[in-house]
Amino acid sequence: MKQLLIINGPNLNLLGKREPTIYGNRSFVGYLETLEAQFPDVQLRYFQSNHEGELIDKIHELGFDVDGIVINAGAYTHTSIAIADALSAVTAPAVEVHISNVHARESFRHHSYLSAKCKGVVVGLGLLGYEMAVRYLLNDA
Amino acid sequence: MKQLLIINGPNLNLLGKREPTIYGNRSFVGYLETLEAQFPDVQLRYFQSNHEGELIDKIHELGFDVDGIVINAGAYTHTSIAIADALSAVTAPAVEVHISNVHARESFRHHSYLSAKCKGVVVGLGLLGYEMAVRYLLNDA
Amino acid sequence: MKQLLIINGPNLNLLGKREPTIYGNRSFVGYLETLEAQFPDVQLRYFQSNHEGELIDKIHELGFDVDGIVINAGAYTHTSIAIADALSAVTAPAVEVHISNVHARESFRHHSYLSAKCKGVVVGLGLLGYEMAVRYLLNDA
Amino acid sequence: MKQLLIINGPNLNLLGKREPTIYGNRSFVGYLETLEAQFPDVQLRYFQSNHEGELIDKIHELGFDVDGIVINAGAYTHTSIAIADALSAVTAPAVEVHISNVHARESFRHHSYLSAKCKGVVVGLGLLGYEMAVRYLLNDA
Amino acid sequence: MKQLLIINGPNLNLLGKREPTIYGNRSFVGYLETLEAQFPDVQLRYFQSNHEGELIDKIHELGFDVDGIVINAGAYTHTSIAIADALSAVTAPAVEVHISNVHARESFRHHSYLSAKCKGVVVGLGLLGYEMAVRYLLNDA
Amino acid sequence: MKQLLIINGPNLNLLGKREPTIYGNRSFVGYLETLEAQFPDVQLRYFQSNHEGELIDKIHELGFDVDGIVINAGAYTHTSIAIADALSAVTAPAVEVHISNVHARESFRHHSYLSAKCKGVVVGLGLLGYEMAVRYLLNDA
Amino acid sequence: MKQLLIINGPNLNLLGKREPTIYGNRSFVGYLETLEAQFPDVQLRYFQSNHEGELIDKIHELGFDVDGIVINAGAYTHTSIAIADALSAVTAPAVEVHISNVHARESFRHHSYLSAKCKGVVVGLGLLGYEMAVRYLLNDA
Amino acid sequence: MKQLLIINGPNLNLLGKREPTIYGNRSFVGYLETLEAQFPDVQLRYFQSNHEGELIDKIHELGFDVDGIVINAGAYTHTSIAIADALSAVTAPAVEVHISNVHARESFRHHSYLSAKCKGVVVGLGLLGYEMAVRYLLNDA
Amino acid sequence: MKQLLIINGPNLNLLGKREPTIYGNRSFVGYLETLEAQFPDVQLRYFQSNHEGELIDKIHELGFDVDGIVINAGAYTHTSIAIADALSAVTAPAVEVHISNVHARESFRHHSYLSAKCKGVVVGLGLLGYEMAVRYLLNDA
Amino acid sequence: MKQLLIINGPNLNLLGKREPTIYGNRSFVGYLETLEAQFPDVQLRYFQSNHEGELIDKIHELGFDVDGIVINAGAYTHTSIAIADALSAVTAPAVEVHISNVHARESFRHHSYLSAKCKGVVVGLGLLGYEMAVRYLLNDA
Amino acid sequence: MKQLLIINGPNLNLLGKREPTIYGNRSFVGYLETLEAQFPDVQLRYFQSNHEGELIDKIHELGFDVDGIVINAGAYTHTSIAIADALSAVTAPAVEVHISNVHARESFRHHSYLSAKCKGVVVGLGLLGYEMAVRYLLNDA
Amino acid sequence: MKQLLIINGPNLNLLGKREPTIYGNRSFVGYLETLEAQFPDVQLRYFQSNHEGELIDKIHELGFDVDGIVINAGAYTHTSIAIADALSAVTAPAVEVHISNVHARESFRHHSYLSAKCKGVVVGLGLLGYEMAVRYLLNDA
Repeated sequence: MKQLLIINGPNLNLLGKREPTIYGNRSFVGYLETLEAQFPDVQLRYFQSNHEGELIDKIHELGFDVDGIVINAGAYTHTSIAIADALSAVTAPAVEVHISNVHARESFRHHSYLSAKCKGVVVGLGLLGYEMAVRYLLNDA
Repeated sequence: MKQLLIINGPNLNLLGKREPTIYGNRSFVGYLETLEAQFPDVQLRYFQSNHEGELIDKIHELGFDVDGIVINAGAYTHTSIAIADALSAVTAPAVEVHISNVHARESFRHHSYLSAKCKGVVVGLGLLGYEMAVRYLLNDA
Repeated sequence: MKQLLIINGPNLNLLGKREPTIYGNRSFVGYLETLEAQFPDVQLRYFQSNHEGELIDKIHELGFDVDGIVINAGAYTHTSIAIADALSAVTAPAVEVHISNVHARESFRHHSYLSAKCKGVVVGLGLLGYEMAVRYLLNDA
Repeated sequence: MKQLLIINGPNLNLLGKREPTIYGNRSFVGYLETLEAQFPDVQLRYFQSNHEGELIDKIHELGFDVDGIVINAGAYTHTSIAIADALSAVTAPAVEVHISNVHARESFRHHSYLSAKCKGVVVGLGLLGYEMAVRYLLNDA
Repeated sequence: MKQLLIINGPNLNLLGKREPTIYGNRSFVGYLETLEAQFPDVQLRYFQSNHEGELIDKIHELGFDVDGIVINAGAYTHTSIAIADALSAVTAPAVEVHISNVHARESFRHHSYLSAKCKGVVVGLGLLGYEMAVRYLLNDA
Repeated sequence: MKQLLIINGPNLNLLGKREPTIYGNRSFVGYLETLEAQFPDVQLRYFQSNHEGELIDKIHELGFDVDGIVINAGAYTHTSIAIADALSAVTAPAVEVHISNVHARESFRHHSYLSAKCKGVVVGLGLLGYEMAVRYLLNDA
Repeated sequence: MKQLLIINGPNLNLLGKREPTIYGNRSFVGYLETLEAQFPDVQLRYFQSNHEGELIDKIHELGFDVDGIVINAGAYTHTSIAIADALSAVTAPAVEVHISNVHARESFRHHSYLSAKCKGVVVGLGLLGYEMAVRYLLNDA
Repeated sequence: MKQLLIINGPNLNLLGKREPTIYGNRSFVGYLETLEAQFPDVQLRYFQSNHEGELIDKIHELGFDVDGIVINAGAYTHTSIAIADALSAVTAPAVEVHISNVHARESFRHHSYLSAKCKGVVVGLGLLGYEMAVRYLLNDA
Repeated sequence: MKQLLIINGPNLNLLGKREPTIYGNRSFVGYLETLEAQFPDVQLRYFQSNHEGELIDKIHELGFDVDGIVINAGAYTHTSIAIADALSAVTAPAVEVHISNVHARESFRHHSYLSAKCKGVVVGLGLLGYEMAVRYLLNDA
Repeated sequence: MKQLLIINGPNLNLLGKREPTIYGNRSFVGYLETLEAQFPDVQLRYFQSNHEGELIDKIHELGFDVDGIVINAGAYTHTSIAIADALSAVTAPAVEVHISNVHARESFRHHSYLSAKCKGVVVGLGLLGYEMAVRYLLNDA
Repeated sequence: MKQLLIINGPNLNLLGKREPTIYGNRSFVGYLETLEAQFPDVQLRYFQSNHEGELIDKIHELGFDVDGIVINAGAYTHTSIAIADALSAVTAPAVEVHISNVHARESFRHHSYLSAKCKGVVVGLGLLGYEMAVRYLLNDA
Repeated sequence: MKQLLIINGPNLNLLGKREPTIYGNRSFVGYLETLEAQFPDVQLRYFQSNHEGELIDKIHELGFDVDGIVINAGAYTHTSIAIADALSAVTAPAVEVHISNVHARESFRHHSYLSAKCKGVVVGLGLLGYEMAVRYLLNDA
């Protein structure tokens, strides 16, 4: 049975509660159930943290074993070379996801340290982006 | 019956023939048949041109009537404000697609004039990106 | 009888239909009749295209014969050195016009490759800008 | 009877005397009589100063009462946020004018702090630019 | 009874011990007692951490309930978009405080990601800055 | 009896009249009475001018004698090295104040030439900022 | 028999007519005859267009068959990533030519998107540059 | 009898009183007497102001009549295009002087808008710089 | 007996396992034994963490007591002002070490916030860099 | 009999020995014989040095007498204003040559101080570039 | 008897011969005699070289013994940190001289590495600048 | 017997004499004896020059034969692409050394053209840096 790691970074625990005009009003945990229902043959291992170090620890812990990583690193996307290095260090392929269209927001959200270390990026397509990333990794792995 | 416009920009007519290590060796027309088979209830209107002006003309011609636009503007992505303006001018929502991971290539490919005018962007996921964009637009429209 | 060439660039064919809060809701062809009525002794030759190359071709075709050029190159204003070179190459003096106040919009609209090759620029005064440019060229030529 | 305020900034008192190859050899006061003759039904209130503070004082004094402001702030165009703020603070709409084509001169003359706070800008059309600004403000106000 | 959250970021635990010529020689905990004595009707909830993630966790935990946040994020001020996002995500208004005058120090201390997400900023006024921020939030909330 | 100089720069004479959504609708003179009532033992010497030169003259005139300077230089904050030099030249300590949160506005308002020459800065806390600056200078002087 | 493609971009149709102090007063078609006479054993296929798209189409059409491409893309040199991509996509080696010394002109003419995709560049040697490029490609192919 | 205009800008009235480690402790008026004694056959017309506008007014008033201008524009050196334009507008040649070595101070003091409009510049040689400028202008005029 | 603190930052726990062509295939713990054997009279206290906050905590905990700090902050080198501040705050001298030659890699690895706060830096000399740093600190302390 | 000066800068003495994948494996002296054989009626004066000063000395010594200069200044191309000034100072026209395609290498090799002082530039065409430069100078001189 | 070292850098040996519209037509050696006549009590030691290294050698050789250095480093002014370091290393004070007004020429001539290491700078006053520098050093030493 | 080349660039001949607070007061030649004593089985070939060209000549002369190069290029570190190219051209591995911590000094000392061409860099560890470089090269070669 295939395994994928889904990682959410800082402030994404507030999804559904935080700025709903940008991020929508559905919690991620609620969405995760839907996603698991769509992919019954895949084990989705979910992890969220506001701590850059914990995100790195988790990538290290599982990134040599899972078949792929879906990562929305939130604001760390734009500031963390350490997470990018962690993705390079492990063997699982990764796909970067952003719920909102970061290119239509502040200019400091236009650059991602992670993109060059991932297979690809899905931006602005809402929660559907996670499903797309999962689908790609299942094809690709 | 829903209609979507799929637009490919310069050099994408060479897909399958051009730099296969970057773009793969499958022609887009061949892929399009697969895509149509996946979405039998949708009319996919495909257009490719190497001419910036023709891409704009086509967006004008169909962009007030179709239910969504999937656009891979190729190199014009990075240089054409005129195409971005055309997407703003019409009423159909658009999704930007790139086959290769532009963020892992030359720095002049990291910026897109189109992204801020689109709902979202799918980068680096190969031809699957077109399918994802179609799927999003059918949900969204 | 004096002749002036009026050139509109990409997306200006949608005037009256496109983003009316920025560009107003009057079509350019409708406005042109008013303009011709104001200058009965002048032949106004109008050309619109979304193709950078066709704009250049037209400048070449008429730019050695007309008494002046009024040009609103739309988004090509900010990206086309080729149109700027065409204006330099021909003998007719040119005036650049923008309907909206480009300086109050996105920063990439603040720079024009054409301005330095024109006699002057009229920005943000709506369709009246065309009339002003015509008036200037009649005085000047 | 409509009133417009015409403001000229630093060094424009030397018009006709200063660098005639750039600015022409006609004094502004001489031109103003022509302008008044063209618009007999409008009261044109003219003010020139080389002092940034006096320009601001005058905008405050009249800018809530006149029907429009025509402003050529000379070199303060490129350095004065304070004048731009004054234009924002008052209620009369403003049009920025430059006699010479600033875009064909030194690069520090290409940026204007005022443009974004004005309705529009007329550049490089000589003294005719003032007439055009007046005409626009009479239509608009 | 009103509640305010006071947050200190990295290295501020060393206050009184670290570089006293810049930061003074009084510990923050000692100062806090004075502050509490000044505002007997307010509950001041104090939190210090050197961990970016813990600062975010605490903002999430209390930021929907307290009447205001006083935050001195130390060096994270200049590097953390994630903390700025956390302040945007919660409902309590925030005031940013810096003990030393960051604008008179290294240039990388001149920019703050937090300022635009706060009501205001108090810089360089020593520990008094905290009192001012408290006073403002009590007025404002 | 202690003396403080309070200086307001360009456009602040319009306070209460100018863009009330940004600056509030209370005049500064009205606020000054409140401030004087709060500090009955301090002589507050108030000066406002739209002229950079007059602000410098006043700093020279009083800046060797008063116990502190509270300065809101308005737009000159961002453009005047001359005022910054004046503050350096005199002996009284200064505190910079801004009523609105300049860091949440246009990017050209994010830099201040004055900050490095002042003891500190209070930004975005409305008229309360002046009171805080006064309080700090009384402690500090 | 060897074949070479010679491509001229925008405004080069005016050679001999346009700014003769920069570009000389000889037409390219006249020069081409001389060139053909010099290389009787080579088929020179010449194409000029002011349309970026047509230049790309021609590179696609012939670029897999000819033994080399001599390209003077005129102003598109500085703005067209799409033409650069076309040169990368085809198999024929290319040499970039400029008649005038672009490095002694405006700074926006100093950068070429094409150079890195070509074997080399000949700048400022007038029409002789085309001959040199031909000679190199015959040696090299 | 030859006439020279010596102009000092903002804060130079404090010479001898302001930051003596940088500017020395001699007043300019005291120095001027020495200078007049050195050049008994020259009329030195001295003007100091903290007002940019007054400096411009004085350049206009005398700049068409005197045989040369010695100008130390203080901090306006780095911010005033208007004074630079005034120097261009008048006929007298000018020499720029700075008492301290501006190139060894803050980076914003390294650029001068005036230098390109002057014959030359004397920097960092103390009050002797004025004498040198006078000497040059007497030779040159 | 002298004590030194050796700190390794994010992803260095994977040494020997991560990208061996860049970092070699020896684990740091294995190397540490060699190092301890080389310096039998020194207590080497080793700490590794992927958490920026834990690195700061450890610097605080030991940095006032040990005789020196050897720090390889990994990717935090390029992004953490907070760690740099921690090094400034404590009393032990520090030496920065990088195993690979960061100057021959991506440009974002060329700048270090830590270098200016350390005595020196050893880059690209592999694990030997740690030994060198130890040797220097023993001489220096 | 015509004379040309051929100058090679630093490291070009190693040609044929240094990085043959970039520069080929033929020594320049060997090539020079071929070149002389091609132009029997021209005296080719060859000079190579690794010393910037010697290159300048040689340009001074011969640059007023020869009919042209072919210069490949190696790495000094990108750093030496002094050599560029020497080329401006003498009367012989110059052509700049680079063996490799500098535009396809590190970005610091994309800018040349010499190009604007030369008639033209030949880049990336190997040793043939010298022949082309010679041919051009013979035509031109 | 006082000694001064006068150093001229690259291309200044051509003075009187090189670009006379910029540099005049008098040779420096001729001028030196005039200068020696003006200062009979001073030994002027003159050195010119086109070699950066020789300039440094000379500064080392004499810079601990002479009473001052007058240096016109020509183009090395803008590129040589090594000469700047040499000036810092020796004990004699230095004054930088430029014959032409470098601030009115190409932008790469606006920055000097030497200025911050010298007492002051004299720019654009022709050969008189050397006399001024000598005069200053005699006063100052 | 192994051979290493130790190269010191400009101004390092003054070591012990020049700015002792930065560089210490020990001459390099004195230090060299110590170093030779430490490595009796290695031939250390030492070369110092203030001439960029001589440094390159020496690298060429010995760089194909020695077992390693220790280079402190002084100020040429920051300006010489030619020395970097010389290091690339030869076969011996190199280590870059700086006595002082260049990252804690002027910003123009933070970039090195040499680092990317060396195995590694030792900065700020005083003369010990040379010993470390030697030790590394003996291990590595």
